[in-house]
Amino acid sequence: MFFEIVHQSKKSRARVGRIHTAHGIIETPNFVPVATNAAIKGVDSTIIKPLDVQLMFCNTYHLILHPGSSTVAKAGGLHQFMNRQQPIITDSGGFQVFSLAYGGVANEIKSRGMKKQEGAILSITEEGATFRSYRDGSRILLTPESSVQAQKELGADIIIPLDELPPYHQEKKHILRSFERTHRWEERSLKTHKQDPMHQYMYGVVHGGVDPILRKKSCDRLSALGFDGLAIGGSLGKDREELANISTTTARFIDPAFPIHLLGVGDLESIERCIPAGIDTFDSSYPTKCARHGILLSHNGPINITRSTWKNVHEPVSTVQPTASYSAAYLHHLFKAHEPIAHTLASIHNIAFMVQTMKTIREKILNNEI
Amino acid sequence: MFFEIVHQSKKSRARVGRIHTAHGIIETPNFVPVATNAAIKGVDSTIIKPLDVQLMFCNTYHLILHPGSSTVAKAGGLHQFMNRQQPIITDSGGFQVFSLAYGGVANEIKSRGMKKQEGAILSITEEGATFRSYRDGSRILLTPESSVQAQKELGADIIIPLDELPPYHQEKKHILRSFERTHRWEERSLKTHKQDPMHQYMYGVVHGGVDPILRKKSCDRLSALGFDGLAIGGSLGKDREELANISTTTARFIDPAFPIHLLGVGDLESIERCIPAGIDTFDSSYPTKCARHGILLSHNGPINITRSTWKNVHEPVSTVQPTASYSAAYLHHLFKAHEPIAHTLASIHNIAFMVQTMKTIREKILNNEI
Repeated sequence: MFFEIVHQSKKSRARVGRIHTAHGIIETPNFVPVATNAAIKGVDSTIIKPLDVQLMFCNTYHLILHPGSSTVAKAGGLHQFMNRQQPIITDSGGFQVFSLAYGGVANEIKSRGMKKQEGAILSITEEGATFRSYRDGSRILLTPESSVQAQKELGADIIIPLDELPPYHQEKKHILRSFERTHRWEERSLKTHKQDPMHQYMYGVVHGGVDPILRKKSCDRLSALGFDGLAIGGSLGKDREELANISTTTARFIDPAFPIHLLGVGDLESIERCIPAGIDTFDSSYPTKCARHGILLSHNGPINITRSTWKNVHEPVSTVQPTASYSAAYLHHLFKAHEPIAHTLASIHNIAFMVQTMKTIREKILNNEI
Repeated sequence: MFFEIVHQSKKSRARVGRIHTAHGIIETPNFVPVATNAAIKGVDSTIIKPLDVQLMFCNTYHLILHPGSSTVAKAGGLHQFMNRQQPIITDSGGFQVFSLAYGGVANEIKSRGMKKQEGAILSITEEGATFRSYRDGSRILLTPESSVQAQKELGADIIIPLDELPPYHQEKKHILRSFERTHRWEERSLKTHKQDPMHQYMYGVVHGGVDPILRKKSCDRLSALGFDGLAIGGSLGKDREELANISTTTARFIDPAFPIHLLGVGDLESIERCIPAGIDTFDSSYPTKCARHGILLSHNGPINITRSTWKNVHEPVSTVQPTASYSAAYLHHLFKAHEPIAHTLASIHNIAFMVQTMKTIREKILNNEI
């Protein structure tokens, strides 16, 4: 059994579950930190280990560009390469190819140009997407089959089929064309995966943008295909409100027997809105990005340690080691002096905070309080 | 007893010694990593602790600009502030004031301009040096008395008197004027220190540029004043050859009863040349700067881990934890992917390498092999 429901809340669709993988168990709901290049920014695996991070997210797009999935395979897979013995999930690479090309929704809305050095899509055909490597300018064709093959070489416990991420603002006919193609790509991905599962599990990616009818259709199709779980992906709207609405609506369309992942969302507000709809896991670089800006997450809201109010607070602000070894004044100083360990110490705090928060949420669900 | 000679080599002036401070013993010869802003770049005190770094160097100039010596005093001193229970040495701030203003010797030779944002000297008088803070543009007067006062607030175990660092290329009459003033400043510094030693020890700074006669004169004068040790400072020449020559020449002028420190020198070649002359401690950011460029120090010479030859070497290149938890291929990847933990892991390796190397050197001196 891959996904086991330990307790279904009497109050909502929230549940406490256990995802069983070859590298151990993931208790759900849970938060999934992002280690884009097989490394969390500023925090190495030996520091992560005691923090009880049960699932970590790595990006196939970045890893195929460097060091290359074959190098990771030669190392014995991602777990061996980055010295992590616990579960890992990888995406297909598609999200980065499309989002770096189109920019995120925020960029679209603000009409920001895309950065020249970032990946550019050269063509999208039925076969796959061709893009230019931002590292060396070479042309790379990413197909459902090649993405799954790369993810087999990386060897994560949970993998994701190739999908297409259409821009948020798009004509209806283009959306529908992309929607159909994405489901064909996912089916091809699953077929490739099933030829040799290698103890990996694959989550289908639910698409349909902010249209509930398309989302329902996507859930139904993917559920019938034989995926091990479903991830809510694609365009999730222009703000947190729209994101929570379409994510929770979509989650309610999914058979509760599936573990449900929400792709790229990890702020506490969104997590707390999505869990009662039955969403189980959330990956995001939000807590580590916050940390790099001096924001420490806390139960009383975010703390900006760079503010001068902390200059003479000579007690720790964190209870997590090693951050707890230092006063707020020292952390404040490290940020002001642009010392790299500022980012490390804040990131450790924020990751541990998310782990602890999810544990508390699981306890509340067990008590039918959520 | 502050400095104890455990063994005098029969082969050279090299000796194995022990410096006794309120925060523990420093075995000599030893290497002293630099933690400019009360933090080694990328490596926090909890990681340093098991590496057995017996003395650490912090920069008063940076610490008076941020967070301010009074803030550190409120924290209970540097040891408390940065959570380091072992010995610390601070400089006077003078070196940075003058070197940021004049640029190093290399900058002088290459006629590089000084960066606008860096500290600028506004005036040098008998009283002290007035400079502009690079942080907020404020005028700061650094005098022998205020430097020692700041170092009392920082609370390091070993402190340094204010001196003047004249440019390498300078007319003889200016050199002599600076030479005389520097010794008057050092005497005032020592007087201020002696009013309340607070378990701190003060090293006089030997000046005289590359002129052996001036160096001898400086040694004689400072030795008579009652310092606890001597540090070889001032301009040490334009290259490693000149540096080793003037440093070893100067060391031979010093009474062997004094512990001798060489300021700002930490490459292995220079260390190995200076130890037979009786120099005991060496501070430098060289090993951590190397680390940030992907250079791992080794007994077979420096290893450039960014070279593609390491891309598929799936065994560790270091025996130091946590760096030893990762393969050379992973370290190579981290540098190529610009991951901050690359710097951390390489810095840990290089600091541990220096600690180990100095331990081996002490053993060789005990065996009269150096």
